[in-house]
Amino acid sequence: MTSNSAALHRDAVVFDGLIVSNWSREVFEDMLKGGITAANCTCSLWEDFKGTMANIVKWNGWFREFSDLILQVRSVDDIARAKAENKIGIVLGWQNTSAIEDQLGYLEIFRDLGVKVMQITYNTQNLSGSGCRETRDGGLSDYGRDVLWEMNRLGILCDLSHVGPKTGEDVIRASKRPVAYTHVCPAALKANPRNKTDEQLRLIAEHGGFVGVTLYPWFLKRGNDSTLEDFVEAVEYVLALLGEDRVGYGTDFTQGYGNEFLDYIGSDKGYGRRVVPVADAIFPADMRTLGQTPNMTEAMLKRGWSEKRIRSVMGENWVRFLKESWETGV
Amino acid sequence: MTSNSAALHRDAVVFDGLIVSNWSREVFEDMLKGGITAANCTCSLWEDFKGTMANIVKWNGWFREFSDLILQVRSVDDIARAKAENKIGIVLGWQNTSAIEDQLGYLEIFRDLGVKVMQITYNTQNLSGSGCRETRDGGLSDYGRDVLWEMNRLGILCDLSHVGPKTGEDVIRASKRPVAYTHVCPAALKANPRNKTDEQLRLIAEHGGFVGVTLYPWFLKRGNDSTLEDFVEAVEYVLALLGEDRVGYGTDFTQGYGNEFLDYIGSDKGYGRRVVPVADAIFPADMRTLGQTPNMTEAMLKRGWSEKRIRSVMGENWVRFLKESWETGV
Repeated sequence: MTSNSAALHRDAVVFDGLIVSNWSREVFEDMLKGGITAANCTCSLWEDFKGTMANIVKWNGWFREFSDLILQVRSVDDIARAKAENKIGIVLGWQNTSAIEDQLGYLEIFRDLGVKVMQITYNTQNLSGSGCRETRDGGLSDYGRDVLWEMNRLGILCDLSHVGPKTGEDVIRASKRPVAYTHVCPAALKANPRNKTDEQLRLIAEHGGFVGVTLYPWFLKRGNDSTLEDFVEAVEYVLALLGEDRVGYGTDFTQGYGNEFLDYIGSDKGYGRRVVPVADAIFPADMRTLGQTPNMTEAMLKRGWSEKRIRSVMGENWVRFLKESWETGV
Repeated sequence: MTSNSAALHRDAVVFDGLIVSNWSREVFEDMLKGGITAANCTCSLWEDFKGTMANIVKWNGWFREFSDLILQVRSVDDIARAKAENKIGIVLGWQNTSAIEDQLGYLEIFRDLGVKVMQITYNTQNLSGSGCRETRDGGLSDYGRDVLWEMNRLGILCDLSHVGPKTGEDVIRASKRPVAYTHVCPAALKANPRNKTDEQLRLIAEHGGFVGVTLYPWFLKRGNDSTLEDFVEAVEYVLALLGEDRVGYGTDFTQGYGNEFLDYIGSDKGYGRRVVPVADAIFPADMRTLGQTPNMTEAMLKRGWSEKRIRSVMGENWVRFLKESWETGV
């Protein structure tokens, strides 16, 4: 790593659009080493109301226990505070709305507890819509529209990364706030149910939305043989499509977890039929852990990116978008 | 009522395919007065796992407290026993699968507690499919197929009365056991999202299924002005379409409930946006309560039906079908 790159990374605001790791002091220390200012950290995947509450109870404990390393982000000001205090800002986020079960009123309960990003469904159908691994996608349900509009009212960002194409389109068109793909890759470079077509990427941007490009190797050009350069190329593809302002990244790191967790997340409801193929995900050799995040900045510099573009993609775009999405009145 | 009709009704096996009343000694006494041998009695509508368990706890209390009036039906033999003992056989049934939440394993738990009929969804979308009041019906979800096949394995009858057209068709085609519309009317006589077209009625019968014609006035030709004769005509329509063996009745009585209950069942999840129009349902003048069920037999006799047909439609068809659906190995 060049000293130029290291200095730029250290100075930049770095925002990771999606991390779902096995949280511990070790992981938080690695994130700090990686120069991550803040991140959208998953605290609900298949869990129901009580299971998600249990996860938030754990987070409350970590916020106390690891207050030297992390702080909770409830607004973009908290991201600035994290940068100033050299801590990691934690945005609590969901990859599913299973936690609200059939209660619209639970959305406000969780928003008040700091959950600021919610994917409306995860891979398969729930009460609100269908996922990208469901055989068919019937679109946003009537209840799903109620959920979305309540999220809009409450200033919760709606994530569509694992959402089915029809449900995703419906959300983009119905939402009163801009929405995001927090961790996806362009389907033009790699065919996969999780990746998004040019049309999908354009549509979300046309509606003021945002795209975080993921590092998850399955969704990159060469699968498990993908390099950091393949990731940077994917980002470039999306930048060419959407311009410089609506693009960031989201690694989708599952650091600290083994295959048991991948079985859990890859099975419907966490235990049912397998919806994601059983296979290892091998991240690029120089980006195996969150601590190596500075290598992303270096790879971008090597590709000849301007400092301005690097700062935008590594975090400034995310922060500006979050401010818009969270704080604009609807 | 002619003595001929009264004697026939008293002797017949009478099965009501759907009752969702405010259970009490009064209601059970009225059912006994009505000569009802057994009925599919709703114990879950929008309730979740615990709410449904609470209802079953109540039923367990009623089975003890009112053991002079009712007994629980777990097989068709119990219906014969109810007839012999002059009691009402109670089949516990659901109008939704909200009670299993996201746990396939709960189906066996509830089957073991005596829930023998389950409608896969009620009016709107759930995890398994869409209802007939949902704006769009994306069909049976992958989880819904898992739910259906587990119901098949366990010998639980799947009800499709309030299910959307695409989800209903998917269930009929995918099910390993015959399924039922427990309480519907023909759309040919009255256009309504709850009514079924000739094509839908034929399809369920072609797959060994069953149709209970409902007395609920909104679904009959003249709405709240409908008469018992209109009901008998609706039954005749379905008999002409499907033959003599696959047709019964299901009143859908909400006896003992007021408008608060209709608000509850008519709103998504029991509290959300209104999915069924707000309006009174006025049953035919000579069929205002379950105690007047003998008037159905009389109306059939008056229309010139044979005793054999009356016995079939009033209950024998239901009992034969339940034996097939519950007890045939899959």
